[in-house]
Amino acid sequence: MTHLSGTNSPSIGPDYIVATYRLVTRDKDLRKRAESIAVGLTVGSWTDLPAARQAQLKPYCGTVGETRILAEHQDGSILAEIEVGYPVRNLTPRIPALLTTVFGKLSMDGDIKLVGLRLPEAFVRQFPGPKFGVAGVRQRLGVEGRPLIMSIFKSCIGMPLDALVEHFTEQALGGVDLIKDDEIFFSEQLATPEARVAAYVRAAERVAGTTGRKVAYAVNLTGPTYELRDRARRLADLGAGALLFNVFAYGLDILQELAADPAIQVPIMAHPAVAGALYAAPRHGIAASIVLGQLLRLAGADIVIYPSPYGSVTLAKEEGAAVLGALRGPSPHKPCLPAPSAGIHPGMVPVLLRDFGTDFIVNAGGAIHGHPGGATAGGQAFVAAVQAAISGRPLREAAQASEPLAQAIARWGVAE
Amino acid sequence: MTHLSGTNSPSIGPDYIVATYRLVTRDKDLRKRAESIAVGLTVGSWTDLPAARQAQLKPYCGTVGETRILAEHQDGSILAEIEVGYPVRNLTPRIPALLTTVFGKLSMDGDIKLVGLRLPEAFVRQFPGPKFGVAGVRQRLGVEGRPLIMSIFKSCIGMPLDALVEHFTEQALGGVDLIKDDEIFFSEQLATPEARVAAYVRAAERVAGTTGRKVAYAVNLTGPTYELRDRARRLADLGAGALLFNVFAYGLDILQELAADPAIQVPIMAHPAVAGALYAAPRHGIAASIVLGQLLRLAGADIVIYPSPYGSVTLAKEEGAAVLGALRGPSPHKPCLPAPSAGIHPGMVPVLLRDFGTDFIVNAGGAIHGHPGGATAGGQAFVAAVQAAISGRPLREAAQASEPLAQAIARWGVAE
Repeated sequence: MTHLSGTNSPSIGPDYIVATYRLVTRDKDLRKRAESIAVGLTVGSWTDLPAARQAQLKPYCGTVGETRILAEHQDGSILAEIEVGYPVRNLTPRIPALLTTVFGKLSMDGDIKLVGLRLPEAFVRQFPGPKFGVAGVRQRLGVEGRPLIMSIFKSCIGMPLDALVEHFTEQALGGVDLIKDDEIFFSEQLATPEARVAAYVRAAERVAGTTGRKVAYAVNLTGPTYELRDRARRLADLGAGALLFNVFAYGLDILQELAADPAIQVPIMAHPAVAGALYAAPRHGIAASIVLGQLLRLAGADIVIYPSPYGSVTLAKEEGAAVLGALRGPSPHKPCLPAPSAGIHPGMVPVLLRDFGTDFIVNAGGAIHGHPGGATAGGQAFVAAVQAAISGRPLREAAQASEPLAQAIARWGVAE
Repeated sequence: MTHLSGTNSPSIGPDYIVATYRLVTRDKDLRKRAESIAVGLTVGSWTDLPAARQAQLKPYCGTVGETRILAEHQDGSILAEIEVGYPVRNLTPRIPALLTTVFGKLSMDGDIKLVGLRLPEAFVRQFPGPKFGVAGVRQRLGVEGRPLIMSIFKSCIGMPLDALVEHFTEQALGGVDLIKDDEIFFSEQLATPEARVAAYVRAAERVAGTTGRKVAYAVNLTGPTYELRDRARRLADLGAGALLFNVFAYGLDILQELAADPAIQVPIMAHPAVAGALYAAPRHGIAASIVLGQLLRLAGADIVIYPSPYGSVTLAKEEGAAVLGALRGPSPHKPCLPAPSAGIHPGMVPVLLRDFGTDFIVNAGGAIHGHPGGATAGGQAFVAAVQAAISGRPLREAAQASEPLAQAIARWGVAE
C-alpha cells in the first residue's frame, strides 16, 4: 500500500523493537496516538515526571517512528499505520514478554492490527530458533535435492491400535517420507502416543523391507504442559520422527522451551490450529506473517504447517508470501521447512516446485486417501510426481510409467 | 438475535461438547457445512466407511445441532449460526484439546467466529476451576461485605527497587486492598519479582501500622514456562498476595497447571493482555465470553481483569454481561472475582455496585495516580467512596467528611 500522507520521523534506534500497527480511527493525530502508546506501554507516564526521573527513565521509554495515512474513508475515518519503538531492555527474550509489550492491552483497543515487527538482531539471537531447520530435517530423514512428502492420517480418533497400524502401513507403503497424526488426536483411551510411536516404528521397519525407505512418524505431542517436556524426550527416545505440536493451543513459550531443550533431539512440527483466531481478521489481531512466520521461527519450530495458496482455506497471496519470507528469509536462525497445506494433489507438484523451490514439504491428506487406488497408491502418485518434477519431466509423460500417477491425474488433473 | 429460518434437529446428547459458530457464507446449505465439520473434526470420514467401521466409530463421530439464518445480506451472503456436537470422549480435560477440537482448523476457515460452548458437567468437573474463588480471596484478604479496591502501579519499568518501594508505599497508604504490577513488567534487571515481593511485604507491614490494613501485592509471574511453577511457589512463600499472570501470552494450559498445583497457595489474577487478538474481531476468533469468561474459570483464574463497560476500551454491553455471567454464573466451580477495568474513578463506585453487586474488584490506575492529592489520596478517595456506597450514602454527602473524595468528585464528577 502506498501512503497518502504521513510524518517523517527520526528513525528509531537499533536497540528498539519496532512494531507497526494498522488501525482505523477518526482521530487524525496519529503522532499523538503513537506517543500515548509509546509511553503507556513502557514507562507509564512522561510529561508530568520531574526532570531527574525523566533522565532516569529515558532509556526505558518507547518512541515513535513513522506514521502514515493509507486511506481516507467516506465516513470520515482513516486507515493508517503507525510505528512504535520499544526499548529492547524492557523485555526478556521470550514470546510472552514480546507479545504482552507490543500487543497486550493494545489488542483490546478497537480496530487495530499488529502488522509488522522489526527485532534487533541481538534480541533475535537470544531466542533458540529451529534446532534442526531445513538441513537438519533433511539429514535426519535422508532426503536431499527434492521436497519431502508427508501423508496426513485421515482418521485417528476412535481407532484401536491395530487399525491405526494398518492405516499407517497403508500410507507408508506409498513411499512417503513422513506420516503425521491428526492434530485433533488428544484422547489416549485406545492408544497412547507412546504406544503409537512404538507400534509405528515397528511397522515402518517392516515397510522399509518393501519400499527401501523408513518413513518417519510425526506424533501429536499432547498432555498437560508440565508433562510435555518429559513426554517429548520419551517419544524421541522411542523413535518418533518429529513432534507435531499445536503451538497456538498451548503457547509459543512452550515451543521455545522444547526447542531450547538439548535433550529433545527430534524436529518439532508446528501445527497452525487456533492460529486463525489470531491472524484471520482484517482489522484485529496479528498478521499471519508474524503469527505463523516470525514467532514460530524465533520460538524454534523446525517444520511449519500453514495454509497453502491453493486450497479453499487460503491466506491472501501476499500474506502467504510474507509467511514464507519469515520462515526462511535472512535471519541468524536456521530456516524452517514450510509445509503449505490444503488443496495439494500430485498434479500440483510442478506448481509447488515453482512456488516453493525444493525446500518444502508436500503435505497431503485428501489426495492420498481419496486416491482411486487407495492410500498406498496415493503416496506412490506423489513420489512419482516429485521424481518427475525434479527432473523436469512433464507429469503426463511420467504418468505413462506410473499407474498411480496416471490415476491421480485422471482424478485431479495437472495444475498450471 | 432472532433467527429468520433454520432447522430444528434432535437435540445433541449430554456427552457432547456443543460449539456454536457464527458465520458469513454464500452457501445456504448450513446443515451440510455443519456435517462436514462434525465429521471432519472427529473421525475424519464417514459416508465411505464400511458398516463395521461406522459402528465402531459412531461414538466418536461429531453431530449436528440447530442451524439458523440470522440475516440475509444484499450481496447474497447470509449471517448464520450452526451448532456442532463433539463427543466428549474424544478430548482430554485440557484447554488445548478443547480449543484444537472446536476451533483448530476451523479458525482458519474464513468468516467464522466461535460464539458459544456448552460443556457437559462431568467434563467441566475435570478442570480445576479457581482454587480460591470469591470467598477464598475475600478470606485471605480479610475483606467482607464490600468490593475490594485495587491500585495499579503506574510505572514499573526502569525504576530501581527503592523507587518502586516508595511508589508501592504511596499507594498502600491510601488503604487499598491490593496493589498490582504493570503487566508489561518483564525485565528483571533492576528488581526481580522475588526482590519486589520481599521488599513490598516489608513496606506493607510498615504501612499497616498507619492504616490498620495489610495490603496484598499482586506480582507479575514472569519467566520461562518451565520455571513458572517453582517461581509461583517461591513468590507465594515470600508473601505475594496474588500472582498476576498474562494467561493469553503464555497459554491457558499453564494457568490450569498452576491452578491445579496444591503447592501454589495464592490466588491467580488473570490479565487479559493479548486476549483482544482472539475476541475483538466481529467475524473471526472466539467470543469474549468464552475467552475471558468460560475458559479462564475452567482453567482456574481466581480474579479476572477485563475491559469494563465504562472506559474508552470497552466490550459491547451484552458481551461484558456474558463475560460476567461466565465468571460467576452457575457452575460446579467456584466463582471468579471480576475486576472490570478502565475508566474507573471514585464517583463511579455507586454505578459499579449497581452493575456488579459487591463481589468484584474496583480496579483503578489513572484515578489513583491522577488524583490531585497524589496516589495516597487517590486510594483514600476510593475507600471513602466504597464505604459510602455500601451504606447507601450519597457520595457528595460522604465527600463532606473526606477531602480526597471531594477532590476526586471535583475532578471526575459522580456517574449516574
